[in-house]
Amino acid sequence: MSMTMPETNPQKEPVTQTSQSAKPNKGGLEGIVAATTAISKVEGTAGRLIYCGYNIHDLARTTTFEEVAHLLWFGYLPNQRELTNLKAKLVAERTLPTSIVEVLRSLPRTAEPMDALRTATSAWGAMAITGKPSIEQAIAVTARFPLFLAAFQRLRNGLKPLESQAELDYAGNYLYLLTGQAPKEEHIKGLNAYLVLLADHGMNASTFTARIVASTESDIVSSVVAAIGALKGPLHGGAPSKVLDMLHEIGTVDNAEPWLRNAITQGGRLMGFGHRVYKTEDPRAEELREMARVADPQGFMLSRRVEELAIALLDELKPGRRLYTNVEFYSAALLASVGLSGDLFTTTFAASRVAGWTAHILEQVQNNRLIRPEADYTGPMDTKFVPLNER
Amino acid sequence: MSMTMPETNPQKEPVTQTSQSAKPNKGGLEGIVAATTAISKVEGTAGRLIYCGYNIHDLARTTTFEEVAHLLWFGYLPNQRELTNLKAKLVAERTLPTSIVEVLRSLPRTAEPMDALRTATSAWGAMAITGKPSIEQAIAVTARFPLFLAAFQRLRNGLKPLESQAELDYAGNYLYLLTGQAPKEEHIKGLNAYLVLLADHGMNASTFTARIVASTESDIVSSVVAAIGALKGPLHGGAPSKVLDMLHEIGTVDNAEPWLRNAITQGGRLMGFGHRVYKTEDPRAEELREMARVADPQGFMLSRRVEELAIALLDELKPGRRLYTNVEFYSAALLASVGLSGDLFTTTFAASRVAGWTAHILEQVQNNRLIRPEADYTGPMDTKFVPLNER
Repeated sequence: MSMTMPETNPQKEPVTQTSQSAKPNKGGLEGIVAATTAISKVEGTAGRLIYCGYNIHDLARTTTFEEVAHLLWFGYLPNQRELTNLKAKLVAERTLPTSIVEVLRSLPRTAEPMDALRTATSAWGAMAITGKPSIEQAIAVTARFPLFLAAFQRLRNGLKPLESQAELDYAGNYLYLLTGQAPKEEHIKGLNAYLVLLADHGMNASTFTARIVASTESDIVSSVVAAIGALKGPLHGGAPSKVLDMLHEIGTVDNAEPWLRNAITQGGRLMGFGHRVYKTEDPRAEELREMARVADPQGFMLSRRVEELAIALLDELKPGRRLYTNVEFYSAALLASVGLSGDLFTTTFAASRVAGWTAHILEQVQNNRLIRPEADYTGPMDTKFVPLNER
Repeated sequence: MSMTMPETNPQKEPVTQTSQSAKPNKGGLEGIVAATTAISKVEGTAGRLIYCGYNIHDLARTTTFEEVAHLLWFGYLPNQRELTNLKAKLVAERTLPTSIVEVLRSLPRTAEPMDALRTATSAWGAMAITGKPSIEQAIAVTARFPLFLAAFQRLRNGLKPLESQAELDYAGNYLYLLTGQAPKEEHIKGLNAYLVLLADHGMNASTFTARIVASTESDIVSSVVAAIGALKGPLHGGAPSKVLDMLHEIGTVDNAEPWLRNAITQGGRLMGFGHRVYKTEDPRAEELREMARVADPQGFMLSRRVEELAIALLDELKPGRRLYTNVEFYSAALLASVGLSGDLFTTTFAASRVAGWTAHILEQVQNNRLIRPEADYTGPMDTKFVPLNER
């Protein structure tokens, strides 16, 4: 069987190997330390995620996205005054130049939202960003992600982009810009928890991409645009809505066991299980599960049954693989419960992770060294050159 | 003293260390094999560059960009029929959608050409690319780089973008689109040699970036857009015009020695010397030097004198550093001699390297494994969470 999962691809490589040993020739840089960071720590064996010293479980349902962005950018949680300051700065950056609306309008309605986000961010960078990466720039680009996304979402539905609401925080304003409705308190809360949980995650592929671009002394938007492209990939952030598709296909609690057994033995795709780094339950999945339980008790019964059965069947049929629910499994349920459509899941992931990307970019440029590895050349050598007219 | 140079940053780290030993904690991935490749090999100690078996010296002045693109994409040099086929495909892709012109027109004239290229490529990808990376897509995006660049160059000068000329090859059409003039034969030849020399270079930062994005199973344009952002950085491809600035500042052959001695001892910037991988002369610099000698004999006298003096003075004042002329030093002279302005040097670099980027993306997805390294966490641990109202 095979699965898609964020940050790993077990179809090509069994996940039984430990991630701690150096295997540079596998091409995936497993166990290779590519950077030092004080921003987040992923403990794959213990199943722990730390943001600047704080366990994710302490932050998940007690802090807002703004508090966590402050933590990632400045290294500490803000007091009330610092939080008010940061919020005011984020609100002040909620401007969308007409020319960016025109760029988004020029894209076909069928364009992927991640492509629209990548293009709008790039165009905005071309007009707004000069000089070295700074916290001000991190705030400016983060504040605009919801605006870019929501403008495209409105335009492709034949609607006019909306003005941001200064009294709404990041999560609430995001929901408002998409729907034009005053967001429900529980939706704001659910989205905030999601944005907190996904904001950073060690040296994942998009963050690593952002750091490499920053290491050339390029600008912050070039780094962020590169990271958007990496997050788009289904092996990273690009496939959470497929969990919903799988759950729809399974349909009922009774159908779960035969469906899963068949999928695992037939080599079908099982979405939302396994992770490159975690060899136990992803701590974010734990939090998301609890929120999904509250947000959609009906749908939760199926999700939970599928999760329990899948873990048991994977253990039975693929012993030693240690495959657990990853962050995608309950992300889908939670994001759907706050009213987002499946094709906005990855862009919503981006609207969270941009805080982590920009924090890493700032950290990279602080004490920079160009990231430039080597390659094993396996091609021919000493080929004799023959001119075109003799070939 | 300090220098800017492509692919290294000796201000932070002395370059005397060998690049072969594993130093993952330096943050630059020196000596770490991040991928296997059959596309190109950089031999830092021998000063050799191989494209798919061919020594760069055999290709530099005997092949065209199209032949080398074929070599990188297909693994072998084309015969006349294969070359004709590839050229026809590249010509057929020379279409610039009106909406891309509108996107470029929406950017301020002061936008950096690399930002314009990044944005146009991203917008084009959003409307034109679906599915997995393919050679057809590699051809389509490569063919359009000159169109994107030249359209922005024309628009920012208040001119209308021009139609491509089917009878001109890649290099000639590039010059035509920028100037509206039939390009001189020696300019086409000089630009072709440059495009051949810069088309690929092992696991450089932009190529590595492109491969990481491709490793998430993202699309070819997301990878290329990411690579553009990396190439923009002055430590990679973003500073070749600064060599010209330095030569202008030196001004005369007589001023070269006092200027250089002062720069080296005072810690000023010496442009175009040193490389992360090469510990001897960059083989591309050798070729570019010969072309610069022919293209601009007058300017060459100063360049050559500065080069000889700089190497001797660096050896005298910074013994053991083994700093030689890198590819940027004579690139500047050559590109200026074919009529390009300094702020188009890096975009011209991109118009060459896109062949290598796309070849590497295709190679990456052929036998993919997500590139996802680890990080050393150096931040605090077990910080006690305090709610906002108690902070």
